[in-house]
Amino acid sequence: MNVIVDLCVVPMGVGVSVSRYVAMCQDVLEEAGLKTSLHAYGTNIEGDYDEVFAAIRRCHEVIHAAGAPRITTTIKMGTRIDREQTMADKLQSVAEKRAAAKLSS
Amino acid sequence: MNVIVDLCVVPMGVGVSVSRYVAMCQDVLEEAGLKTSLHAYGTNIEGDYDEVFAAIRRCHEVIHAAGAPRITTTIKMGTRIDREQTMADKLQSVAEKRAAAKLSS
Amino acid sequence: MNVIVDLCVVPMGVGVSVSRYVAMCQDVLEEAGLKTSLHAYGTNIEGDYDEVFAAIRRCHEVIHAAGAPRITTTIKMGTRIDREQTMADKLQSVAEKRAAAKLSS
Amino acid sequence: MNVIVDLCVVPMGVGVSVSRYVAMCQDVLEEAGLKTSLHAYGTNIEGDYDEVFAAIRRCHEVIHAAGAPRITTTIKMGTRIDREQTMADKLQSVAEKRAAAKLSS
Repeated sequence: MNVIVDLCVVPMGVGVSVSRYVAMCQDVLEEAGLKTSLHAYGTNIEGDYDEVFAAIRRCHEVIHAAGAPRITTTIKMGTRIDREQTMADKLQSVAEKRAAAKLSS
Repeated sequence: MNVIVDLCVVPMGVGVSVSRYVAMCQDVLEEAGLKTSLHAYGTNIEGDYDEVFAAIRRCHEVIHAAGAPRITTTIKMGTRIDREQTMADKLQSVAEKRAAAKLSS
Repeated sequence: MNVIVDLCVVPMGVGVSVSRYVAMCQDVLEEAGLKTSLHAYGTNIEGDYDEVFAAIRRCHEVIHAAGAPRITTTIKMGTRIDREQTMADKLQSVAEKRAAAKLSS
Repeated sequence: MNVIVDLCVVPMGVGVSVSRYVAMCQDVLEEAGLKTSLHAYGTNIEGDYDEVFAAIRRCHEVIHAAGAPRITTTIKMGTRIDREQTMADKLQSVAEKRAAAKLSS
Protein backbone atom coordinates (compact mmCIF):
# COMPACT_ATOMS: atom_id res chain seq x y z
CA MET A 1 0.00 0.00 0.00
CA ASN A 2 1.51 3.31 -1.12
CA VAL A 3 1.16 6.28 1.24
CA ILE A 4 1.85 9.99 1.32
CA VAL A 5 2.66 11.03 4.86
CA ASP A 6 3.28 14.30 6.67
CA LEU A 7 5.47 13.68 9.74
CA CYS A 8 6.15 16.07 12.62
CA VAL A 9 8.23 14.67 15.47
CA VAL A 10 8.42 16.67 18.73
CA PRO A 11 10.98 15.52 21.34
CA MET A 12 10.00 16.55 24.89
CA GLY A 13 12.20 17.05 27.93
CA VAL A 14 15.23 18.20 25.94
CA GLY A 15 14.79 21.96 26.08
CA VAL A 16 13.30 24.41 23.67
CA SER A 17 15.39 23.70 20.56
CA VAL A 18 14.69 20.44 18.79
CA SER A 19 16.25 20.93 15.33
CA ARG A 20 19.12 18.57 16.24
CA TYR A 21 16.58 15.75 16.61
CA VAL A 22 14.67 16.70 13.48
CA ALA A 23 17.99 16.50 11.59
CA MET A 24 18.56 12.95 12.93
CA CYS A 25 15.11 12.00 11.74
CA GLN A 26 15.91 13.36 8.26
CA ASP A 27 18.98 11.10 8.20
CA VAL A 28 16.89 8.07 9.18
CA LEU A 29 14.37 8.73 6.41
CA GLU A 30 17.14 9.26 3.86
CA GLU A 31 18.92 6.06 4.89
CA ALA A 32 15.62 4.22 4.47
CA GLY A 33 15.63 5.32 0.84
CA LEU A 34 12.35 7.20 1.19
CA LYS A 35 11.41 10.19 -0.93
CA THR A 36 11.07 13.16 1.44
CA SER A 37 10.49 16.89 1.37
CA LEU A 38 11.13 19.01 4.48
CA HIS A 39 8.87 22.01 5.15
CA ALA A 40 8.61 24.47 8.03
CA TYR A 41 6.27 22.28 10.13
CA GLY A 42 7.13 18.71 9.19
CA THR A 43 8.35 16.42 6.44
CA ASN A 44 6.39 14.96 3.55
CA ILE A 45 7.21 11.33 2.84
CA GLU A 46 6.19 9.11 -0.06
CA GLY A 47 6.56 5.35 -0.06
CA ASP A 48 5.29 1.92 0.90
CA TYR A 49 3.28 1.83 4.16
CA ASP A 50 5.48 -0.77 5.84
CA GLU A 51 8.71 0.98 4.87
CA VAL A 52 7.47 4.41 5.93
CA PHE A 53 6.25 3.20 9.33
CA ALA A 54 9.40 1.15 9.94
CA ALA A 55 11.36 4.39 9.35
CA ILE A 56 9.08 6.40 11.66
CA ARG A 57 9.61 3.79 14.37
CA ARG A 58 13.36 4.10 13.80
CA CYS A 59 13.09 7.91 14.17
CA HIS A 60 11.56 7.47 17.63
CA GLU A 61 14.23 4.92 18.60
CA VAL A 62 17.10 7.13 17.43
CA ILE A 63 15.74 10.25 19.14
CA HIS A 64 15.15 8.38 22.41
CA ALA A 65 18.70 6.94 22.16
CA ALA A 66 20.03 10.50 21.70
CA GLY A 67 18.53 11.49 25.05
CA ALA A 68 14.92 12.53 24.56
CA PRO A 69 12.83 10.81 27.27
CA ARG A 70 9.51 11.53 25.56
CA ILE A 71 8.30 12.17 22.01
CA THR A 72 4.94 13.29 20.66
CA THR A 73 4.47 12.96 16.92
CA THR A 74 1.75 14.14 14.56
CA ILE A 75 1.20 12.24 11.31
CA LYS A 76 -1.14 12.82 8.39
CA MET A 77 -1.41 9.87 6.02
CA GLY A 78 -3.19 9.60 2.69
CA THR A 79 -3.97 6.50 0.64
CA ARG A 80 -6.04 6.14 -2.52
CA ILE A 81 -6.99 3.24 -4.78
CA ASP A 82 -8.68 5.17 -7.61
CA ARG A 83 -5.36 6.23 -9.14
CA GLU A 84 -1.67 6.72 -8.39
CA GLN A 85 -0.72 10.12 -7.04
CA THR A 86 2.68 11.44 -6.00
CA MET A 87 3.51 14.42 -3.79
CA ALA A 88 4.40 16.34 -6.96
CA ASP A 89 1.02 15.45 -8.50
CA LYS A 90 -0.80 16.91 -5.52
CA LEU A 91 1.03 20.22 -5.78
CA GLN A 92 0.50 20.37 -9.55
CA SER A 93 -3.21 19.69 -9.17
CA VAL A 94 -3.70 22.70 -6.87
CA ALA A 95 -1.60 24.92 -9.16
CA GLU A 96 -3.72 23.93 -12.18
CA LYS A 97 -6.99 24.62 -10.35
CA ARG A 98 -5.74 28.07 -9.34
CA ALA A 99 -4.63 28.87 -12.87
CA ALA A 100 -7.96 27.67 -14.29
CA ALA A 101 -9.93 29.72 -11.77
CA LYS A 102 -7.98 32.85 -12.69
CA LEU A 103 -8.58 32.31 -16.41
CA SER A 104 -12.32 31.88 -15.92
CA SER A 105 -12.80 34.88 -13.63
CA MET B 1 8.06 -0.01 21.74
CA ASN B 2 4.82 0.88 23.52
CA VAL B 3 2.75 3.74 22.07
CA ILE B 4 -0.32 5.77 22.88
CA VAL B 5 -2.00 6.82 19.65
CA ASP B 6 -4.92 9.05 18.69
CA LEU B 7 -6.37 7.91 15.36
CA CYS B 8 -8.82 9.78 13.14
CA VAL B 9 -9.64 8.13 9.81
CA VAL B 10 -11.51 10.18 7.17
CA PRO B 11 -12.80 8.30 4.10
CA MET B 12 -13.21 10.58 1.05
CA GLY B 13 -15.42 10.18 -1.97
CA VAL B 14 -18.18 8.34 -0.08
CA GLY B 15 -20.50 11.19 0.78
CA VAL B 16 -20.87 13.25 3.90
CA SER B 17 -21.53 10.54 6.48
CA VAL B 18 -18.57 8.37 7.41
CA SER B 19 -19.65 6.74 10.69
CA ARG B 20 -20.17 3.40 8.92
CA TYR B 21 -16.45 3.36 8.09
CA VAL B 22 -15.40 4.51 11.55
CA ALA B 23 -17.42 1.59 12.95
CA MET B 24 -15.51 -0.85 10.68
CA CYS B 25 -12.27 0.59 11.96
CA GLN B 26 -13.41 0.05 15.57
CA ASP B 27 -14.02 -3.61 14.72
CA VAL B 28 -10.54 -3.94 13.22
CA LEU B 29 -8.89 -2.45 16.31
CA GLU B 30 -10.96 -4.69 18.61
CA GLU B 31 -10.14 -7.80 16.59
CA ALA B 32 -6.46 -6.86 16.88
CA GLY B 33 -6.85 -7.05 20.65
CA LEU B 34 -5.84 -3.42 21.15
CA LYS B 35 -7.02 -1.30 24.06
CA THR B 36 -9.10 1.53 22.59
CA SER B 37 -11.27 4.43 23.68
CA LEU B 38 -13.53 6.20 21.17
CA HIS B 39 -14.07 9.96 21.53
CA ALA B 40 -15.91 12.54 19.43
CA TYR B 41 -12.94 13.22 17.10
CA GLY B 42 -10.97 9.98 16.98
CA THR B 43 -9.96 6.90 18.91
CA ASN B 44 -7.24 6.53 21.53
CA ILE B 45 -5.23 3.32 21.18
CA GLU B 46 -2.66 1.81 23.50
CA GLY B 47 -0.30 -0.98 22.47
CA ASP B 48 2.87 -2.15 20.82
CA TYR B 49 4.02 0.02 17.88
CA ASP B 50 4.08 -2.83 15.35
CA GLU B 51 0.66 -4.14 16.40
CA VAL B 52 -0.94 -0.69 16.40
CA PHE B 53 0.37 0.21 12.95
CA ALA B 54 -0.49 -3.19 11.50
CA ALA B 55 -4.07 -2.54 12.69
CA ILE B 56 -4.10 1.00 11.23
CA ARG B 57 -2.95 -0.43 7.89
CA ARG B 58 -5.77 -2.97 8.13
CA CYS B 59 -8.26 -0.11 8.80
CA HIS B 60 -7.24 1.52 5.52
CA GLU B 61 -7.47 -1.79 3.64
CA VAL B 62 -10.92 -2.60 5.03
CA ILE B 63 -12.29 0.89 4.34
CA HIS B 64 -10.93 0.87 0.77
CA ALA B 65 -12.43 -2.61 0.25
CA ALA B 66 -15.78 -1.26 1.48
CA GLY B 67 -15.79 1.29 -1.33
CA ALA B 68 -13.87 4.39 -0.20
CA PRO B 69 -11.48 5.39 -3.02
CA ARG B 70 -9.43 7.73 -0.84
CA ILE B 71 -8.64 8.07 2.88
CA THR B 72 -6.89 10.81 4.83
CA THR B 73 -5.94 9.95 8.38
CA THR B 74 -4.56 12.03 11.25
CA ILE B 75 -2.50 10.31 13.93
CA LYS B 76 -0.93 11.56 17.13
CA MET B 77 1.57 9.16 18.69
CA GLY B 78 3.38 9.36 22.00
CA THR B 79 6.30 7.29 23.24
CA ARG B 80 8.37 7.67 26.40
CA ILE B 81 11.30 5.81 27.92
CA ASP B 82 11.48 7.55 31.30
CA ARG B 83 8.55 5.58 32.70
CA GLU B 84 5.52 3.52 31.73
CA GLN B 85 2.32 5.49 31.20
CA THR B 86 -1.13 4.28 30.19
CA MET B 87 -4.02 6.29 28.74
CA ALA B 88 -5.65 6.14 32.18
CA ASP B 89 -2.44 7.48 33.81
CA LYS B 90 -2.50 10.51 31.50
CA LEU B 91 -6.08 11.40 32.42
CA GLN B 92 -5.39 10.90 36.14
CA SER B 93 -2.32 13.11 35.98
CA VAL B 94 -4.30 16.06 34.60
CA ALA B 95 -7.09 15.51 37.15
CA GLU B 96 -4.57 15.53 40.02
CA LYS B 97 -2.94 18.74 38.78
CA ARG B 98 -6.33 20.46 38.56
CA ALA B 99 -7.28 19.31 42.06
CA ALA B 100 -3.92 20.46 43.47
CA ALA B 101 -4.21 23.86 41.75
CA LYS B 102 -7.67 24.39 43.23
CA LEU B 103 -6.45 23.50 46.74
CA SER B 104 -3.54 25.91 46.54
CA SER B 105 -5.54 28.83 45.13
CA MET C 1 -20.09 29.04 12.72
CA ASN C 2 -20.30 26.07 15.09
CA VAL C 3 -17.24 23.82 15.37
CA ILE C 4 -16.22 20.58 16.98
CA VAL C 5 -12.52 20.72 17.81
CA ASP C 6 -9.93 18.31 19.14
CA LEU C 7 -7.15 20.24 20.91
CA CYS C 8 -3.75 18.93 22.01
CA VAL C 9 -1.38 21.52 23.48
CA VAL C 10 2.29 20.54 23.99
CA PRO C 11 4.47 22.94 26.00
CA MET C 12 8.18 22.65 25.11
CA GLY C 13 11.23 23.55 27.16
CA VAL C 14 9.57 22.74 30.50
CA GLY C 15 10.71 19.18 31.01
CA VAL C 16 9.05 15.89 30.37
CA SER C 17 5.84 16.30 32.39
CA VAL C 18 3.29 18.70 30.99
CA SER C 19 0.07 17.76 32.81
CA ARG C 20 0.28 20.93 34.93
CA TYR C 21 -0.06 22.99 31.73
CA VAL C 22 -2.82 20.82 30.32
CA ALA C 23 -4.71 21.40 33.58
CA MET C 24 -4.37 25.19 33.13
CA CYS C 25 -5.74 24.84 29.65
CA GLN C 26 -8.75 22.92 30.98
CA ASP C 27 -9.42 25.81 33.36
CA VAL C 28 -9.25 28.33 30.51
CA LEU C 29 -11.73 26.33 28.41
CA GLU C 30 -14.06 25.92 31.38
CA GLU C 31 -13.94 29.62 32.23
CA ALA C 32 -14.80 30.38 28.60
CA GLY C 33 -18.02 28.42 29.11
CA LEU C 34 -17.17 25.90 26.40
CA LYS C 35 -18.41 22.33 26.39
CA THR C 36 -15.34 20.08 26.68
CA SER C 37 -14.42 16.44 27.08
CA LEU C 38 -10.88 15.43 28.04
CA HIS C 39 -9.41 12.22 26.59
CA ALA C 40 -5.99 10.59 26.79
CA TYR C 41 -4.52 12.55 23.84
CA GLY C 42 -6.36 15.87 23.82
CA THR C 43 -9.63 17.61 24.58
CA ASN C 44 -12.79 17.71 22.49
CA ILE C 45 -14.44 21.13 22.41
CA GLU C 46 -17.81 22.18 21.02
CA GLY C 47 -18.79 25.79 20.43
CA ASP C 48 -18.76 28.88 18.26
CA TYR C 49 -15.62 29.26 16.11
CA ASP C 50 -14.70 32.70 17.46
CA GLU C 51 -15.20 31.67 21.09
CA VAL C 52 -13.27 28.41 20.70
CA PHE C 53 -10.29 30.10 19.02
CA ALA C 54 -10.27 32.98 21.49
CA ALA C 55 -10.01 30.34 24.24
CA ILE C 56 -7.23 28.46 22.43
CA ARG C 57 -5.32 31.72 22.11
CA ARG C 58 -5.81 32.26 25.84
CA CYS C 59 -4.45 28.74 26.52
CA HIS C 60 -1.22 29.64 24.74
CA GLU C 61 -0.97 32.96 26.59
CA VAL C 62 -1.54 31.36 29.99
CA ILE C 63 0.93 28.53 29.37
CA HIS C 64 3.61 30.96 28.14
CA ALA C 65 2.96 33.16 31.20
CA ALA C 66 3.42 30.09 33.41
CA GLY C 67 6.93 29.63 32.04
CA ALA C 68 6.78 27.61 28.83
CA PRO C 69 8.94 29.33 26.21
CA ARG C 70 7.51 27.36 23.30
CA ILE C 71 4.26 25.53 22.52
CA THR C 72 3.29 23.25 19.65
CA THR C 73 -0.40 22.48 19.34
CA THR C 74 -2.35 20.06 17.16
CA ILE C 75 -5.96 20.86 16.33
CA LYS C 76 -8.61 18.97 14.39
CA MET C 77 -11.68 21.02 13.52
CA GLY C 78 -14.94 19.96 11.93
CA THR C 79 -17.73 22.11 10.51
CA ARG C 80 -20.84 21.10 8.61
CA ILE C 81 -23.76 22.96 7.08
CA ASP C 82 -25.98 20.01 6.11
CA ARG C 83 -27.21 19.51 9.67
CA GLU C 84 -26.39 20.23 13.29
CA GLN C 85 -24.22 17.65 15.03
CA THR C 86 -22.91 17.57 18.59
CA MET C 87 -19.99 15.60 20.01
CA ALA C 88 -22.57 13.22 21.56
CA ASP C 89 -24.26 12.78 18.15
CA LYS C 90 -20.96 11.69 16.59
CA LEU C 91 -20.37 9.02 19.23
CA GLN C 92 -23.95 7.78 18.97
CA SER C 93 -23.74 7.54 15.19
CA VAL C 94 -20.72 5.20 15.35
CA ALA C 95 -22.36 3.10 18.08
CA GLU C 96 -25.51 2.70 15.97
CA LYS C 97 -23.54 1.65 12.88
CA ARG C 98 -21.64 -0.96 14.90
CA ALA C 99 -24.88 -2.32 16.38
CA ALA C 100 -26.53 -2.44 12.94
CA ALA C 101 -23.52 -4.22 11.40
CA LYS C 102 -23.62 -6.88 14.13
CA LEU C 103 -27.34 -7.48 13.60
CA SER C 104 -26.91 -7.91 9.85
CA SER C 105 -23.90 -10.23 10.04
CA MET D 1 0.85 36.74 19.19
CA ASN D 2 2.81 35.50 16.18
CA VAL D 3 2.16 31.95 15.00
CA ILE D 4 3.49 29.45 12.50
CA VAL D 5 0.69 27.20 11.35
CA ASP D 6 0.37 24.12 9.17
CA LEU D 7 -3.13 23.94 7.68
CA CYS D 8 -4.76 20.98 5.92
CA VAL D 9 -8.39 21.46 4.92
CA VAL D 10 -10.38 18.38 3.78
CA PRO D 11 -13.82 19.00 2.24
CA MET D 12 -16.15 16.01 2.61
CA GLY D 13 -19.17 15.02 0.54
CA VAL D 14 -17.79 16.49 -2.71
CA GLY D 15 -16.19 13.42 -4.23
CA VAL D 16 -12.63 12.22 -4.28
CA SER D 17 -10.84 15.24 -5.77
CA VAL D 18 -10.55 18.26 -3.52
CA SER D 19 -7.81 20.34 -5.17
CA ARG D 20 -10.40 22.88 -6.41
CA TYR D 21 -11.25 23.67 -2.78
CA VAL D 22 -7.61 23.75 -1.68
CA ALA D 23 -7.02 26.30 -4.46
CA MET D 24 -9.85 28.49 -3.10
CA CYS D 25 -8.27 28.31 0.32
CA GLN D 26 -4.92 29.44 -1.14
CA ASP D 27 -6.69 32.48 -2.60
CA VAL D 28 -8.26 33.32 0.76
CA LEU D 29 -4.91 33.16 2.53
CA GLU D 30 -3.26 35.27 -0.18
CA GLU D 31 -6.02 37.88 -0.05
CA ALA D 32 -5.55 38.04 3.73
CA GLY D 33 -1.95 39.10 3.09
CA LEU D 34 -0.52 36.11 4.93
CA LYS D 35 2.85 34.57 4.15
CA THR D 36 2.19 31.01 2.97
CA SER D 37 4.02 28.02 1.55
CA LEU D 38 2.10 25.13 -0.01
CA HIS D 39 3.44 21.59 0.39
CA ALA D 40 2.11 18.17 -0.60
CA TYR D 41 0.02 17.70 2.57
CA GLY D 42 -0.98 21.21 3.66
CA THR D 43 0.06 24.85 3.73
CA ASN D 44 2.47 26.58 6.10
CA ILE D 45 1.28 30.00 7.24
CA GLU D 46 3.09 32.67 9.21
CA GLY D 47 1.36 35.64 10.81
CA ASP D 48 -0.60 37.12 13.69
CA TYR D 49 -2.86 34.66 15.53
CA ASP D 50 -6.04 36.66 15.00
CA GLU D 51 -5.36 37.27 11.30
CA VAL D 52 -4.43 33.64 10.64
CA PHE D 53 -7.54 32.27 12.36
CA ALA D 54 -9.81 34.82 10.73
CA ALA D 55 -8.47 33.57 7.38
CA ILE D 56 -8.95 29.92 8.34
CA ARG D 57 -12.55 30.70 9.29
CA ARG D 58 -12.97 32.36 5.91
CA CYS D 59 -11.55 29.24 4.19
CA HIS D 60 -14.29 27.13 5.78
CA GLU D 61 -16.96 29.67 4.83
CA VAL D 62 -15.81 29.87 1.21
CA ILE D 63 -15.54 26.09 0.82
CA HIS D 64 -19.00 25.54 2.33
CA ALA D 65 -20.39 28.27 0.03
CA ALA D 66 -18.82 26.44 -2.93
CA GLY D 67 -20.85 23.35 -2.11
CA ALA D 68 -18.99 21.27 0.46
CA PRO D 69 -21.46 20.25 3.19
CA ARG D 70 -18.76 19.16 5.64
CA ILE D 71 -15.10 19.99 6.27
CA THR D 72 -12.53 18.40 8.54
CA THR D 73 -9.32 20.36 9.04
CA THR D 74 -6.03 19.53 10.72
CA ILE D 75 -3.92 22.36 12.11
CA LYS D 76 -0.52 22.42 13.76
CA MET D 77 0.33 25.72 15.46
CA GLY D 78 3.57 26.85 17.05
CA THR D 79 4.21 29.87 19.27
CA ARG D 80 7.34 30.86 21.16
CA ILE D 81 8.28 33.76 23.42
CA ASP D 82 12.02 33.05 23.84
CA ARG D 83 12.87 34.50 20.41
CA GLU D 84 11.40 35.34 17.03
CA GLN D 85 11.45 32.56 14.48
CA THR D 86 10.18 32.49 10.91
CA MET D 87 9.32 29.50 8.71
CA ALA D 88 12.64 30.10 6.90
CA ASP D 89 14.53 30.09 10.23
CA LYS D 90 13.10 26.68 11.10
CA LEU D 91 14.25 25.15 7.81
CA GLN D 92 17.70 26.74 8.12
CA SER D 93 18.11 25.45 11.66
CA VAL D 94 17.57 21.84 10.58
CA ALA D 95 19.91 22.27 7.60
CA GLU D 96 22.66 23.64 9.87
CA LYS D 97 22.30 20.77 12.33
CA ARG D 98 22.57 18.23 9.51
CA ALA D 99 25.67 19.94 8.10
CA ALA D 100 27.31 20.11 11.55
CA ALA D 101 26.55 16.44 12.23
CA LYS D 102 28.15 15.43 8.94
CA LEU D 103 31.30 17.48 9.69
CA SER D 104 31.70 15.93 13.13
CA SER D 105 31.17 12.33 12.02
